[in-house]
Amino acid sequence: MNRVCRLFGIKYPIIQGGMVWCSGWRLASAVSNAGGLGLLGAGSMHPETLQEHIRKCKAATDKPFGVNVPLMYPELDRIMDIIIEEGIKIVFTSAGSPAKWTEKLHQEGIKVAHVVSSTYFAKKCEEAGVDAIVAEGFEAGGHNGREETTTFCLVPAVRRICTVPLIAAGGIVSGDGILAAQALGAEAVQMGTRFALTRESSAHFSFKDRCLQLNEGDTILTLKQLAPTRLIKNEFYKKIEEAERRGASADEIRELLGKGRAKKGIFEGDIFDGELEIGQAASMLRNLQTVDEVMKELIADYRSAAENIQTTL
Amino acid sequence: MNRVCRLFGIKYPIIQGGMVWCSGWRLASAVSNAGGLGLLGAGSMHPETLQEHIRKCKAATDKPFGVNVPLMYPELDRIMDIIIEEGIKIVFTSAGSPAKWTEKLHQEGIKVAHVVSSTYFAKKCEEAGVDAIVAEGFEAGGHNGREETTTFCLVPAVRRICTVPLIAAGGIVSGDGILAAQALGAEAVQMGTRFALTRESSAHFSFKDRCLQLNEGDTILTLKQLAPTRLIKNEFYKKIEEAERRGASADEIRELLGKGRAKKGIFEGDIFDGELEIGQAASMLRNLQTVDEVMKELIADYRSAAENIQTTL
Repeated sequence: MNRVCRLFGIKYPIIQGGMVWCSGWRLASAVSNAGGLGLLGAGSMHPETLQEHIRKCKAATDKPFGVNVPLMYPELDRIMDIIIEEGIKIVFTSAGSPAKWTEKLHQEGIKVAHVVSSTYFAKKCEEAGVDAIVAEGFEAGGHNGREETTTFCLVPAVRRICTVPLIAAGGIVSGDGILAAQALGAEAVQMGTRFALTRESSAHFSFKDRCLQLNEGDTILTLKQLAPTRLIKNEFYKKIEEAERRGASADEIRELLGKGRAKKGIFEGDIFDGELEIGQAASMLRNLQTVDEVMKELIADYRSAAENIQTTL
Repeated sequence: MNRVCRLFGIKYPIIQGGMVWCSGWRLASAVSNAGGLGLLGAGSMHPETLQEHIRKCKAATDKPFGVNVPLMYPELDRIMDIIIEEGIKIVFTSAGSPAKWTEKLHQEGIKVAHVVSSTYFAKKCEEAGVDAIVAEGFEAGGHNGREETTTFCLVPAVRRICTVPLIAAGGIVSGDGILAAQALGAEAVQMGTRFALTRESSAHFSFKDRCLQLNEGDTILTLKQLAPTRLIKNEFYKKIEEAERRGASADEIRELLGKGRAKKGIFEGDIFDGELEIGQAASMLRNLQTVDEVMKELIADYRSAAENIQTTL
């Protein structure tokens, strides 16, 4: 049996990324109800908001779900307290070192997965005793690694040095992508972009609509002087690009970015001035579907890809 | 039977990239003799040098081999004349439009594959009547697409819109990578980096030695104001980076680059001041092997990956 399915008690090895401004209780419960693993995205929630979403998610599904927590979060202790109080049993951590939190969460009977973008941090995760590693490539939306290692290069590299259950992320939006991730040694996939663009995602309709019309090359990894982030090349991005071209400092870029830019773009739907974080593979998506439709399509496409793969060698 | 194998008359769907300064007759004939498709790299050869390599390659193998021709080449007409005169039956074109040359080459009974980095150009290729398309992702070494689309995103996108035989390239250095490329819909793979770092490659030993010690993040896609190129972050690159940081113009970068920088790095082994073009996946390679060892390992690893793939879904 698939180790990731066993670890989290899920039917399909498909995990929905706990994205900022997209991953509320509606999305997470829909994914869990469809047999995948739904994750609430604590990165864009105040502690009390997270508590509310956890409670609503519990009411909406009796299947396992988890919470994604960026470890740089300002109210991290309070967030973790709520997760423990509410009896959450699955936590995905990202953007920080898992060393401190993994043991503490384990003491509460919580399974811990950590998101990495390099083999260096994958090794650190394994040493910290995480239950699973998410290896996320350059093509993923939002925050990303400085090494720019793609999913195709990262997943097999992590597989070679780690023995813990491995979840591939970045650029996976379809059934053939899931099969390819497994070929590279992953046991499950985490999909952000595909689920961000479903009806149940809490992103603004204008954001989803914009994302579903993207072509290749319409997203870019930028803000490299701050934290590398993949987003759509909209009017806001053009200001960043212009500033970088004239040699702007990190401080100038930080000021230009300001606060609340991702909320403005993704949640409030300001597609011109907002920060529109989405993965490169959005250009393969055109339809706003429900989570149930997505899950059924993924599984059907996966099975068709597995049957049709040309294993002549 | 695999369409790419049938098209080129080869045993394994493994094609060696026709790289500048690496792909002479020794490398191409060794790959063809081992059951793959060897390609001479005309991009770094004067016409008479190419003629010499074609003749030596014919003497060294009775198996099919081909020539890679960048269509921006200054002496293009002379190169094509030699290819036709010498009876070459396989040409891979890149860096330019295949519209003009495909028909002419077909009239001479030559099979044509063209290298692209986007679905837009893949469609153009199909319209031009090419026999196969090489879809090459962002992780590949050397010249690369402006869209920065990774292999994981590019290959399935091209597969969905094109029906011609599809060859995946970029980031593929191992048997599990070949299996993953097939999962994404490719029928064959083109591997540059893995073959550039064999004993038969004509690259300088110091270049190979440097490449075999790389870690993740040690290559970068740069020179974006000219033609985006993936290379090692060596002392020469640091000068480019510094110039870009202070907002240097394309002309300044061009002057800094100068002429013959790739030859200096790859062929003459100046690992400090040369342009060291290599793919991201070099960081997974540590040993200088012969082509025969590489081919045997690829096939064994591929078969093992195909047996072990977890197709639970």
